[in-house]
Amino acid sequence: MTYELYYWDGLQGRGEFVRLALEEAGADYVDVTRADGPGRGTGAMLEIMKREKRPQIPFSPPFLKDGELFVSHVANILLYLGPKLGLAPAGDEQRFVANGLQLTITDLVSEVHDTHHPISTSQYYEDQKDAAKLRAEAFIQERIPKYLGYFERILKANTSGPTYSVGPSLSYVDLSLFQVVEGLTYAFPRAMKGYAPRYPLLIALRDAVAQRPNIARYLQSERRLPFNEDGIFRHYPELDQDIA
Amino acid sequence: MTYELYYWDGLQGRGEFVRLALEEAGADYVDVTRADGPGRGTGAMLEIMKREKRPQIPFSPPFLKDGELFVSHVANILLYLGPKLGLAPAGDEQRFVANGLQLTITDLVSEVHDTHHPISTSQYYEDQKDAAKLRAEAFIQERIPKYLGYFERILKANTSGPTYSVGPSLSYVDLSLFQVVEGLTYAFPRAMKGYAPRYPLLIALRDAVAQRPNIARYLQSERRLPFNEDGIFRHYPELDQDIA
Repeated sequence: MTYELYYWDGLQGRGEFVRLALEEAGADYVDVTRADGPGRGTGAMLEIMKREKRPQIPFSPPFLKDGELFVSHVANILLYLGPKLGLAPAGDEQRFVANGLQLTITDLVSEVHDTHHPISTSQYYEDQKDAAKLRAEAFIQERIPKYLGYFERILKANTSGPTYSVGPSLSYVDLSLFQVVEGLTYAFPRAMKGYAPRYPLLIALRDAVAQRPNIARYLQSERRLPFNEDGIFRHYPELDQDIA
Repeated sequence: MTYELYYWDGLQGRGEFVRLALEEAGADYVDVTRADGPGRGTGAMLEIMKREKRPQIPFSPPFLKDGELFVSHVANILLYLGPKLGLAPAGDEQRFVANGLQLTITDLVSEVHDTHHPISTSQYYEDQKDAAKLRAEAFIQERIPKYLGYFERILKANTSGPTYSVGPSLSYVDLSLFQVVEGLTYAFPRAMKGYAPRYPLLIALRDAVAQRPNIARYLQSERRLPFNEDGIFRHYPELDQDIA
């Protein structure tokens, strides 16, 4: 069965957390809005979102279609795919632990988004730049160390060793942490230059994920879109700053 | 086994979504920070959050302790408790649908929080009031109808009828929707006076939940804290407005 991933074309965005899991597992999937043919393209995605009679209408992309089932929200999609792709920890209890970590990443991603859109998602960045500067400063000085410090503690506290975030093997949470470090480094290079030395386990995890054969191949492929200013992680130099 | 719920004392906040599920099910639980004795009180919660050696450190409250397992994040706690409390839909696939809806509620709650804290959670509301007014206006005029319109559609599209959000019986999602409508009505009475007639199924669900015996008893008890300006849903008259 081919998984169908629905997400906005042209950006990594939230869809990237799902792509990384599908790519690491070598799963059979279609990135629907970027494909051609019947039932493909952005129009097909919008069509699904408009349906009034379907009980599983997603609120917004990304969502995954597997057969007749629609699963929406990144953490939910990864919770669903994790065991099928061999990227979930063993045991039910550990899956709730992984889901808790993924939901912390969800919150972080939402805060990153709001550094450039602190007032309204429907207004241009340029029209909320003053608030964006204030929010980005608070995010860089207070929130980045709170989040990255937390994940560094999680790696350090792993009773199976600090290589992965949950248990003795790679999970989708680790792939998402790779993306978080990459994204923050793209968006806030000055700040991350200051922070990186403080979180060696997290940086080592980022490096290890980047070298996994399927991920390395993916990162060099055309399927991996570059970071850009339509995504979640945007590089606006005026929002970046050195750490205090 | 007594469930232990850890959340900040003195406010409904995100903990309330968990309390409503525990109360509806008549579950045996302790609201730890509001209880007295050894291992109780706010100090006990902060102690757990500081532990460096525990692999399941929660990022922030609320979190639930069940035996040796810690589960964090509202949607994750409800995913965990749902089947145990008889508040999850039947069938694995429907549980992913419910979780997707709950994560949409999570996003809504986060946006409500940011109406009064658009710049930084560590600054006072008074110090970010200008941005708060802008964000609250966008939230009221654009986001409330997007979210409530979505949940109204979900109720309408339920193939088992519009009484509940997933399948033919009450789930934790319905209890959370009750709290969302109550909270928005507390925080933005002028806006909600305008919106309520547009979402009759959601208002009917709110009323039906309020009348369930265990919930009605809970709402009249001292365990139900009143809404206040320390919580997520805050009533600042200057942030409320009529709908366009």
